[in-house]
Order: sequence, then C-alpha cells, then structure tokens
Amino acid sequence: MRIGIIGAGQLGRMLALAGYPLGLRFVFLDKSADAPGAQVGSIITGEFDDPARLRELADASDLVTFDVENVPVEAVRTIADRVRFLPSVRALEAAQDRLTEKTLFEALAIPTPKFRAVDTLAGLREAALAIGYPGVLKTRRLGYDGKGQRQLGSEADLESAWTALGRVPLIFETCVPFECEVSIIGVRSVSGETASYPISKNYHESGILQRSVAPFVEPRLQSVAEQYLSRLFEHLDYAGVLTIEFFVCDGELIANEMAPRVHNSGHWTIEGAVTSQFENHIRAVLGLPLGVTDAIGHAGMLNFLGRLPPLKRVLAIPGAHYHGYGKEARPRRKLGHCTVTASSPAERDRRLDELLAIFGSQS
Amino acid sequence: MRIGIIGAGQLGRMLALAGYPLGLRFVFLDKSADAPGAQVGSIITGEFDDPARLRELADASDLVTFDVENVPVEAVRTIADRVRFLPSVRALEAAQDRLTEKTLFEALAIPTPKFRAVDTLAGLREAALAIGYPGVLKTRRLGYDGKGQRQLGSEADLESAWTALGRVPLIFETCVPFECEVSIIGVRSVSGETASYPISKNYHESGILQRSVAPFVEPRLQSVAEQYLSRLFEHLDYAGVLTIEFFVCDGELIANEMAPRVHNSGHWTIEGAVTSQFENHIRAVLGLPLGVTDAIGHAGMLNFLGRLPPLKRVLAIPGAHYHGYGKEARPRRKLGHCTVTASSPAERDRRLDELLAIFGSQS
Repeated sequence: MRIGIIGAGQLGRMLALAGYPLGLRFVFLDKSADAPGAQVGSIITGEFDDPARLRELADASDLVTFDVENVPVEAVRTIADRVRFLPSVRALEAAQDRLTEKTLFEALAIPTPKFRAVDTLAGLREAALAIGYPGVLKTRRLGYDGKGQRQLGSEADLESAWTALGRVPLIFETCVPFECEVSIIGVRSVSGETASYPISKNYHESGILQRSVAPFVEPRLQSVAEQYLSRLFEHLDYAGVLTIEFFVCDGELIANEMAPRVHNSGHWTIEGAVTSQFENHIRAVLGLPLGVTDAIGHAGMLNFLGRLPPLKRVLAIPGAHYHGYGKEARPRRKLGHCTVTASSPAERDRRLDELLAIFGSQS
Repeated sequence: MRIGIIGAGQLGRMLALAGYPLGLRFVFLDKSADAPGAQVGSIITGEFDDPARLRELADASDLVTFDVENVPVEAVRTIADRVRFLPSVRALEAAQDRLTEKTLFEALAIPTPKFRAVDTLAGLREAALAIGYPGVLKTRRLGYDGKGQRQLGSEADLESAWTALGRVPLIFETCVPFECEVSIIGVRSVSGETASYPISKNYHESGILQRSVAPFVEPRLQSVAEQYLSRLFEHLDYAGVLTIEFFVCDGELIANEMAPRVHNSGHWTIEGAVTSQFENHIRAVLGLPLGVTDAIGHAGMLNFLGRLPPLKRVLAIPGAHYHGYGKEARPRRKLGHCTVTASSPAERDRRLDELLAIFGSQS
C-alpha cells in the first residue's frame, strides 16, 4: 500500500519514517526535490495547486493525506474523487480560515478569544471598538509560526497594522492574558475509534514554538480538552490526528487554533509515548486499531530554529533523541528538534536545561 | 553525511530508519532493486563481490558498513582503502568462519562447545571419536538460520552428513545440553566508549530465531557476558554493534557464535530500550556518544516467518509495535516482526501469547 502526502516537510518525513515499519510506501508532492520527505521517500515535484501533479499523486497512491494545512482546497477537491483523501476536505477547510475555525469553536461551545471579521479599515475600527485593546490583528488564511499578525495596543496602531496586513480578509481578536500555552493532540480513526495524548505545555518565541514538555499533569484540564476534541471529531466526522492549541487563563482552556494534522507540539510522542502521533495518524486514516497514547515517563522537546547544535554535544545528554530534517539553514527556520526523556519531571527539566545551554551557547 | 550499507535486508532498512533522524542519508548495495532497504533509501544494484559496484558504493559514501556478515572479505578489502569501513575487515573475517570464531573464543577464555576442524571423512571420524556424541557438523562458512548443519547421534550418521555437507571446510562441535539460549548485544564506538544491552532470552525453531524476551534478569550472567564482550572489543579493536549468542548450561554461559552487526535478537531495543541497537551502531561507527541502553519496561519480540499476520489483529494488542520488511513471502523467510512492550514480565508474556495465538491461528 502506498500513501501519498501533499507536502514533504519534516512532518511528512516523520509520517513516512513512522509508516515504513507498518510495511507502507510513501510518495510526496512538493516543490523541492530535496525536501525533508523527499530524502526518505519518492517525490513528485510540483506546486500544491497544480492539478496535473495532484492527479499524478492520486494515481500513484492508495490514500492521500497532507503534512501542511495550507493546501488549496479547490485543487484538492479535484482529486478527492479519484482517491481517498483524509483528513477530509471539509476538515481542512474548517482549519484554513481563522474566522471559520473560531466560528466553529463558538458553535461547539469551545471557549475562544472574542473575535470579529475585518475587511476594511472602517471595519477594523469597529472591531477594535467592540472588542477593545490590547488586540491582535491576523490574516484569516496562510498564517503560521506568528506570521501574518500584528499586535494592537491602541487606536494609534490600527492604520499601520491595516496597511501591513490589509487587502486580504483579516480577523481581530482580543489579546488573552494567559498563564501558559498548552495543546492537546487527539486522533480519530475512520472506524470511529478515538484516543488522545496527555496535554503538553508549550513555550513560544516570537510566535514560533520553541519547546514543549509533557505530560502536563492537570487531570481536570485534560478531561475538558478531550471533550473539546470529541466535539470537533463528531462535528467534522474526522479521521486522522487533530491538534488544538489553548491558552490557559484563570485556570481554564481558551482555544487559540486547531490544526488538522500532526503537530510540532507532539514531536515528543516519538520517544515519549507508547505510540507516536505520526504512527497513530497513519493507523487512523487506514482504519487500523489506534496505538496506546500513554506517556512513557516525562519528555521535553526543543526546536532547533535557524541552526543545528553540534550533534556530539547533544547526543552526550543521556536520553537525548535528535531529529535533523535535512533542511538548509535559514534564520528562524525549523531545522530539527531534540526530545529528552526521563523518569521524573525534575530530571527531564535538568536535561532540557542542558540541551538549552548547548543550543544557546552556539548563537 | 551519507552512509553506505552492503546488504539491503531488513537490518539495513532498520539501520537507515534509525539513522534518518540523525540527519544522515543512506545508499545500499544489494542485488535486488526492491530489497527492504531499497524501499527506504537509494540503491546500487549488484553482487557483494563485484569490485566495480563496491567502488561505486565507496565513492557515494562517507563511511561503509554492512548488514550481513557473509560479505566476501577479499572484495571488501579493495574498498577499505578508499573509504572508512566499519566494523573492520578483521572483525568481519573473525566472525565469518566458525573455526576462526571458536578458536578466538578459546584464546580469550570465553567458554565455547568442544570443537574440531573437519576436512575429510576420515577427519570427521577422528573428530567424532575425540569429541563424542551427540555432535553437530556445520559448514565453517555461510551458515545462518540453521542452514548448513547436521545433527550426529552416532557413527551411523557420519557418512550421510559428510555427503550432505562435504567438499567444503567443516567443523564438528559437541551438542551442548542447554537450559536456554540467550544473547548479549554490545556496542563500541571508534572513540573506545562501550555499552551493552540487557541480555535477551531467545527461542529458536529449526535453527531460526522465533522469539526473544528482554531483559533476562540475571545480574551475574549479565556481568559475565559483558566481560566476554569486552574481551572481544579489545582484541578486535572493534567499532559498531557486536552480538554474542550463548547456551546457558548448568547456569553458565557457553558462547555459540558471534555476529559483527545488529542482530535479530536485538529488535526489541527499537521500542524496548532507550536507544535502539540500530541507532547505537550508527553512533558507534561515526564516533558519536553512545545512547542509553537501558530497557524501558519489558519487551517481547516475535518473528513473522513465512507469512505476515493480519495487521489489524496485531495492532489491536496494546503496546504492539509492528515491523513489516516489504519482502515477498517464501516459506520460513523472515518477513517482519512485532515487539510488545509492557510494564511487567507477566503482562509482556500475556501480550506475547496473544500475538502468538494470532500468528499461529493463520497457519
């Protein structure tokens, strides 16, 4: 059986590496013939919205999935009739637009920051008036890793933010004063079986995930997050891995966004859980029984942004698991990550500090 | 950095899958373009003793290793000058011939069954007289998975065994009445750093490994086995993973054979140890710090010989980790394996029984 993956980034690469032991083969669609996934599987080079290349991928695959949610929905719709495509086009669509996404959160009674659609400068002024400051203005589509966002502290910031981001559909959201950021990763099989991983606590730097630790042991929040996941699963008749990112405010979960795919905040599951998010995504879309999602001890994950640390120094940390993605270095680009595992949170944090020191000392 | 691997069997495939996260690339030499390793890396097709293909592999690689020890030493010697080749040709040579191997065990005071070289029928009669019955007659080279062996119960068996195996150098060994079979997998880096995994207990069927469980908790035997490993490491100035298989007789270890490579009895380390034998082999030959070899809980591994069980039924077992090698089915061929992990030996054995029942019910 051959799985097609739209996007051959590090997520696609790790999906393939998790799927090979299941006896599967992989073919990617990506514009770069040397993308991370292309280094470990076969590649069709082309743009995600090129109908001919998408058809080629569909014809080479028994099932198609994706490693990036910014896949043009209209283009994908043309192949969804030719080949099984999961998660569904509908789920992809719901997650691509911040307005659709937050409207869905509201409809399913999943708390989310106050928001309003913005299409004109006048509309921006109205939204700011209705929601108040501080706020954040975001593009509705194609934003990731903090791109396509502007902080708004007062009316004085409106015009420059509008100019910077304008001429595309926007959303104004209230800034939530959060204690911390967490995420939950769940998985639902085409058979309807579901499972979820322990919540991870995430640390961002300028909008990019810098590190995660798991499990974040808060049984009440875990149970609430699982309820939210289950509402989304049901509503979207979902298949595959689904991630929700939350702010924790006054001890409650406020949903920030969701991703219809494996997620950076779940990389710790490769070594830190019985079954990784990558293997479970594949099990889910193929209708195979889901793997156990329990954490094995305590895990911490650090992203290598912009540069890679010396491999020798990282691997000298006991329980360090290195992952290089085979990408060229560019400022702030995700080039790899490392997960440290330990039997206690204290030991995990000590190892993570050691890792941070090694990575930091090279800057 | 690109690693060349002579042989693209399941061991080579698992080496590549373990090495990709380290940011490495892999190229195989194998006669089949669809060998297990070729499905996950690039392939040079050719025979192991074809000097032109070996040179091509050497020129495409920063370092060459192997996944099978029956690589012609003379052919390999021609490339060992062009590219780093590890484990060394000397270690490969020592393990390729049962007589050399057992002579080395004796020289290093590693107990081994009584043996004698046999080159003629008359020599076989002499050996049998000196060593006694029951004995086993083996080809000195190219034997694996019970191939190239004949059991000898009395003088009446000598001539037929000689005819079946004769005309190649042989070795006569005494049959050891063992309580069980175990193996130890150790690793030595080019830096001299060493580590070893907990011993596994192995079950064979007609000379082929059927299943392994680990850790085999016998602190005294663990320590003795580690001493034997360390003598071989020193003597051979070894780099990479080295396996020794033992009989346990009257509570003592009797070395049966060694393999200068990752080993089937160590597949459990992929999920059952902090760092797998595959990753540690790569770390060792590259001179990277070795990874922690501690077991995580208890693991049991079952080989899928001749056929694969239904994936759905296997994955329904909690803690089951499936590995298909992408090989065509042939009687008794190793097509895949499954490792079950659990927090206690009892739970591990229960899951292994479940797995055995699923595999057995399909025969």
